[in-house]
Amino acid sequence: MNAKAPQESRTIMTDLVLPSETNPLNNLFGGELLARMDRAAAISARRHSRRIVVTASVNHVAFNSAVPLGSVVTVEAKVSRAFRTSMEVFIDVWIEDRESGARTKANEAIYTFVAVDETGRPVAVPEVLPETDLEKERFAAALRRKQLSLLLAGKIKPQDATELKALFE
Amino acid sequence: MNAKAPQESRTIMTDLVLPSETNPLNNLFGGELLARMDRAAAISARRHSRRIVVTASVNHVAFNSAVPLGSVVTVEAKVSRAFRTSMEVFIDVWIEDRESGARTKANEAIYTFVAVDETGRPVAVPEVLPETDLEKERFAAALRRKQLSLLLAGKIKPQDATELKALFE
Amino acid sequence: MNAKAPQESRTIMTDLVLPSETNPLNNLFGGELLARMDRAAAISARRHSRRIVVTASVNHVAFNSAVPLGSVVTVEAKVSRAFRTSMEVFIDVWIEDRESGARTKANEAIYTFVAVDETGRPVAVPEVLPETDLEKERFAAALRRKQLSLLLAGKIKPQDATELKALFE
Amino acid sequence: MNAKAPQESRTIMTDLVLPSETNPLNNLFGGELLARMDRAAAISARRHSRRIVVTASVNHVAFNSAVPLGSVVTVEAKVSRAFRTSMEVFIDVWIEDRESGARTKANEAIYTFVAVDETGRPVAVPEVLPETDLEKERFAAALRRKQLSLLLAGKIKPQDATELKALFE
Amino acid sequence: MNAKAPQESRTIMTDLVLPSETNPLNNLFGGELLARMDRAAAISARRHSRRIVVTASVNHVAFNSAVPLGSVVTVEAKVSRAFRTSMEVFIDVWIEDRESGARTKANEAIYTFVAVDETGRPVAVPEVLPETDLEKERFAAALRRKQLSLLLAGKIKPQDATELKALFE
Amino acid sequence: MNAKAPQESRTIMTDLVLPSETNPLNNLFGGELLARMDRAAAISARRHSRRIVVTASVNHVAFNSAVPLGSVVTVEAKVSRAFRTSMEVFIDVWIEDRESGARTKANEAIYTFVAVDETGRPVAVPEVLPETDLEKERFAAALRRKQLSLLLAGKIKPQDATELKALFE
Repeated sequence: MNAKAPQESRTIMTDLVLPSETNPLNNLFGGELLARMDRAAAISARRHSRRIVVTASVNHVAFNSAVPLGSVVTVEAKVSRAFRTSMEVFIDVWIEDRESGARTKANEAIYTFVAVDETGRPVAVPEVLPETDLEKERFAAALRRKQLSLLLAGKIKPQDATELKALFE
Repeated sequence: MNAKAPQESRTIMTDLVLPSETNPLNNLFGGELLARMDRAAAISARRHSRRIVVTASVNHVAFNSAVPLGSVVTVEAKVSRAFRTSMEVFIDVWIEDRESGARTKANEAIYTFVAVDETGRPVAVPEVLPETDLEKERFAAALRRKQLSLLLAGKIKPQDATELKALFE
Repeated sequence: MNAKAPQESRTIMTDLVLPSETNPLNNLFGGELLARMDRAAAISARRHSRRIVVTASVNHVAFNSAVPLGSVVTVEAKVSRAFRTSMEVFIDVWIEDRESGARTKANEAIYTFVAVDETGRPVAVPEVLPETDLEKERFAAALRRKQLSLLLAGKIKPQDATELKALFE
Repeated sequence: MNAKAPQESRTIMTDLVLPSETNPLNNLFGGELLARMDRAAAISARRHSRRIVVTASVNHVAFNSAVPLGSVVTVEAKVSRAFRTSMEVFIDVWIEDRESGARTKANEAIYTFVAVDETGRPVAVPEVLPETDLEKERFAAALRRKQLSLLLAGKIKPQDATELKALFE
Repeated sequence: MNAKAPQESRTIMTDLVLPSETNPLNNLFGGELLARMDRAAAISARRHSRRIVVTASVNHVAFNSAVPLGSVVTVEAKVSRAFRTSMEVFIDVWIEDRESGARTKANEAIYTFVAVDETGRPVAVPEVLPETDLEKERFAAALRRKQLSLLLAGKIKPQDATELKALFE
Repeated sequence: MNAKAPQESRTIMTDLVLPSETNPLNNLFGGELLARMDRAAAISARRHSRRIVVTASVNHVAFNSAVPLGSVVTVEAKVSRAFRTSMEVFIDVWIEDRESGARTKANEAIYTFVAVDETGRPVAVPEVLPETDLEKERFAAALRRKQLSLLLAGKIKPQDATELKALFE
């Protein structure tokens, strides 16, 4: 299996915010955005692995900006790093002003997917070869996040989370 | 208003075919695909005009290939030509094989949108400046389609449909 | 297979316009109407053929009137002409004023369906025997549309589109 | 306000059973059928009254026949009797065999609606003038149902439910 | 099969009223509430029987209070009495004021479910052992409702509806 | 504002997994579960604060167990700790075996909500007073998560994340 660039798994889902997807302040529901990001990220993980993929985890997602009814929302997903059978997918969410056309970053999120065969058993996936500076930075940070995730799940000890521990020294 | 290239209105909507969107043969319902194409084309027309847009008409759409449950479908829309207040949007639909990653063209469609102000009154839109060969070809054909549409609606006479008439000479 | 009158495939779908189906002007989305027409037309084609049917194409659809939130919309579909394995379905869309009860024509559209067996292979369908004047007129026009469609698809030459060519002479 | 025949409020909603509307036995969910009947009956009550209408109650509904995935279901609603500000709507549900075209009665149901003004206050509605035998029978039974409903709600005493009491004598 | 208390089948479904579920007065559609109650009641019947269950009937449901957009709605279902293969499920619907937190009863409804095996054939279910006063009252009334239902369906004669007849004496 | 126990914001949403909510392995989509948890958690935060609430962030969510089509899923949310205007909501997800009735923990997740007034401006919320051991443990951990979140967002320095830093010493 040859390593692949994040560009090869890049997935763009541009869609409207419909009235049925809004909260009492007339902004997109957090839950609906989480669902869209999950679908876009799943397609990205599938493009990287050419496998059936299932959501394994969602990392910290911050909803910085409200997304108003009628907005054009672009969800853009790329695999940022692959571990043996899992893939970290980095998702950027943009909204677009109708009149000026200006795009502003509304959110970013990180989901992890596992590639599985038809019976649901995990299978190996290609590595990721980051190209741009941003891709390289996200690739490096992915390892710290992986350690943090294992640490929080009690699967490794604090002193083994080498990348993470370095932050506090 | 400066003319814009089709590239500036390019809209990509990649999404999955979910179980609730399939017919008895387990393929994507024609009606669901029509609805997705309408949303993508509306965003494209909005990007071109920076206005509220409403669907004015749908030209001949051929459903050449079935789109099976679980497919990754990419709907790509670009404004192909603008008339005074209306825009023709050309839509290409691709499906992607999960295992090989090969993309095949599943459908194409042409929708027309009108730009309106907050009260629903038509407003002028920028012209389109085609760049690639395919864009130029679609730009030229748009005039024939426009004449055909006016002819079928009885708004012009056959002899005034100059572009169209030439086909039969 | 005996020929059938359009009346035998007549399908009526009356329903409300719900909040989740509207655009920023509070009118029914074009895409949602396209989807409803597809379902009604599919039922009509199924009633004519007693077969599984799949959408083959959508002819020129003009959205002449906006359909406001809360409207009662009636979609009425009848098979207008059958070719060997395909059926042209003519769809009329009406909206109804709540206070006066007056019905006004909002749209019309033409969809084509193909009858298939369980494996998806096209199968022959009964002919259509038009009865009313309107049905006869639509039956005749269906042949011109068929030729136009074959012509646009490059499957016949302009000079063989006899019905269509006559328009320009 | 002139009395109206049930025929004037007749509402037909023919639609498919889609995969997202089925239970583990692959039949239409009871809840989805209740929702469709509510929409059709609301349109019928609106046609009779030319008013905004709200669901007041649902009478005993028996689900006699399962409605399988892919069925064509016709919900037909007519106002069977009007009281001062309320209307009883009788709903018949039919399913249609694809191959033979035979229609079988799947369910019937009775909903009651109240006509209201824009502030939600009940307003008077026209009377119903039954025409066919079946309409006359349903018109008569509506009074017994009304008494039963008042009786069960503790709003009248058993001895005042004259129509109902007669059943036990 | 041991008898079970209603408490063991108690099912709570708390959810929001979303914009897509409202009528022109901005209140929850009757049909949507009927669908939610059906799902909650089905889960309750399933908890009592540990079987696949299908909706058999809906008893008189009165919509006493409007449920406004944005409300928090709690649907609470408990099996009130079991007959051989069927279960009566009593459903209470509450809405909650956001500012005071006060809960008010919005509706109640009674649904009947039948337990079936994988082929759809009815199977026996455990009895119900009511505990609280309210449960005992509903348990007793269930027999009267059962007789009324059989009577209205013409399956028993008025004089055999002993519980019901007593009401009029 | 008096402090409140987590019990006062406890929210239970029990519902079925419907066919339209499943992935190619016939299990509940990650995105759909994220959306349900968001709705339940929003209700919980609203019960704690009696305010409009908006999703601020989603902490690490691990999808440990697949949730198959037809499952009964219970989402249970409680506010675990309040900061000035924000609330951490802890969500437990259970699935229930139809035949044995056994409940197993499928997932847990942590969402953060901010209370806002009608103009969207953050407003203060009551404190949380944990009662059970589990509530106390989650209350304490919430501070570490808060620090981690601020640290990852670059809003505090590693040496100020006192609770977190202690983990590595």
